[in-house]
Amino acid sequence: MDETRNLILEIANRLYDLDAEVYRLLGSGLGRVFNNSREEAIRNLADVMKQHRTSHYLRSSLALIGNMARTIPDRQERARVMGEYNEIWQLVQKLPDRFGAVDILDESLAELNQSLAANRLAGRFGPDNHLIVCIGRTYGSAGTDIGFTLADKLRINYYDTEIFAEVLERLEAKQDHVKDRSSFNFSGDLNQEPKAVESGKSLKARLREFSRYHGLSKTDAVFFNQSALICEMAQREDFVIMGRCADVVLTNHQIPHVSIFINAPFDIRVRRVMKQDGLDDKSARKFLKKLDRRHRAYCEFYTSRKWGDVVNYDLCINSASYGIDGSVQLIERLLLQK
Amino acid sequence: MDETRNLILEIANRLYDLDAEVYRLLGSGLGRVFNNSREEAIRNLADVMKQHRTSHYLRSSLALIGNMARTIPDRQERARVMGEYNEIWQLVQKLPDRFGAVDILDESLAELNQSLAANRLAGRFGPDNHLIVCIGRTYGSAGTDIGFTLADKLRINYYDTEIFAEVLERLEAKQDHVKDRSSFNFSGDLNQEPKAVESGKSLKARLREFSRYHGLSKTDAVFFNQSALICEMAQREDFVIMGRCADVVLTNHQIPHVSIFINAPFDIRVRRVMKQDGLDDKSARKFLKKLDRRHRAYCEFYTSRKWGDVVNYDLCINSASYGIDGSVQLIERLLLQK
Repeated sequence: MDETRNLILEIANRLYDLDAEVYRLLGSGLGRVFNNSREEAIRNLADVMKQHRTSHYLRSSLALIGNMARTIPDRQERARVMGEYNEIWQLVQKLPDRFGAVDILDESLAELNQSLAANRLAGRFGPDNHLIVCIGRTYGSAGTDIGFTLADKLRINYYDTEIFAEVLERLEAKQDHVKDRSSFNFSGDLNQEPKAVESGKSLKARLREFSRYHGLSKTDAVFFNQSALICEMAQREDFVIMGRCADVVLTNHQIPHVSIFINAPFDIRVRRVMKQDGLDDKSARKFLKKLDRRHRAYCEFYTSRKWGDVVNYDLCINSASYGIDGSVQLIERLLLQK
Repeated sequence: MDETRNLILEIANRLYDLDAEVYRLLGSGLGRVFNNSREEAIRNLADVMKQHRTSHYLRSSLALIGNMARTIPDRQERARVMGEYNEIWQLVQKLPDRFGAVDILDESLAELNQSLAANRLAGRFGPDNHLIVCIGRTYGSAGTDIGFTLADKLRINYYDTEIFAEVLERLEAKQDHVKDRSSFNFSGDLNQEPKAVESGKSLKARLREFSRYHGLSKTDAVFFNQSALICEMAQREDFVIMGRCADVVLTNHQIPHVSIFINAPFDIRVRRVMKQDGLDDKSARKFLKKLDRRHRAYCEFYTSRKWGDVVNYDLCINSASYGIDGSVQLIERLLLQK
């Protein structure tokens, strides 16, 4: 306790003197940071340091003095003053309830976070864990282009909605010993979701499925099959996976992964969809709003998590700020120390 | 036109053969990607490639074949097949409306985006532009700790609410030739906002300010003074700036900067605030909700932008995934190629 009081007093006194010294050297027109009496200033600083709740004011005054000190023209004087500044900063780190002492790191989350491991291992991934990158995105944000290019650059597998639907269909077909196999299915709509797959099925087909999926609606069955497949793959290989709420599935199964959400300003997505799909402004907006609604509904139905909210991912990227290649570079750098 | 048709036909045929070859080597239980007749498969692929709207199915089948090809055990065979895969991928890049052809990059946004420039300049910033990092954050997400540590590591200035209020007050005091200066003000509440500053002022004080700020409410005057100060500083120096909607101010003045938003899951912020500010669960939640409301209101009032929505930043970071040091490393790596 006494130790802490002494530490506080030392910091307060040295900071007060540093402020005076910086002022002597620069004579800022704004006056000194502490331009009241030493006694008063020390008392203020001591009070501030005694509780974390206000200790960010210490940070502010430290920063204010440091900002000024860096502008000292004379190189030697600056070095001397910054040296004292750094020593005081070291002392502040020793305060029992210094700012920054309470980290925000969520161990359980971090454990699932490969890129943190990557930081730790100087850019290498744990040998026991596969590199799994889950990418959620809004349509028109080039998220799939980014995911595909990323997978290609990392030389790892890429899975999207169509591939998933296809692989699952074949696995089931295999289980059901269905002889004749349809070819790779190009028929799904632009942004195939189980709900979309289900629509437009005859009642007979629905009933057949209903029994076939042990009483689950096909939508649910597909989701659960996908979830099982994702976890199975995660034991075997590195991959980039688009959507499918894969991040939530993996988190629930305690499987390490990096989860990224890619979005871009609505107007820029509209502009891109117009170019890409040859739609006019009005129908592009309508189309995007519809897909966003569907994505959100799917994600929130199966995960009860808010779609696109950064707190549900490790990182959200505004692809309009970086472009496709820039975003890929950014993610690569995040994953492997480049 | 003929050229494109020929390109499409070449891609379709080589992809069909590659699929057959991969199947010959692996004999996947799931059958071939194209297990219908060559004619039918080529027709499908050609149709798909003719319009961008469906060309992502080409990407999917490409990826599906590539995923399998990477598992070919024989090293030489794999190299040969992946070579053909890459050649086909090169051809696909030549398609006039290949996927990924329409970039999402917003030139005007990118121009304001230093980290993109950093990518381009191999991690160095334009000599004519200062490095300005705008950090928005939710209270309890350790955003200020991350910002302060970042500034310290980058050896650049750090500005937060208190420093700003202080500097402005002194500038005004100077203008008004006020003789006696109060000391560095430790009196503001935990998360000082102009609105907060204003509250609890006597009517007389408000009226005096009202005339003093030329008919602007002090809240507005402070905002506009801050905006002017931010732009002035941006011409002079590198810095990290917390909040103040600085990113919007700089964007409006076409001043390059990187804008980052830091957030963390509510429960984890609650846990941290309890530790840090010694509050119980109930009051910590109440406190955070109040601050979030105030932040949102302030930001949306002055910028009419949605607070914390990634489309209004370059990047959003979930600090709970990385912790304070991890988040700082991540931003450093984003800014300077490390």
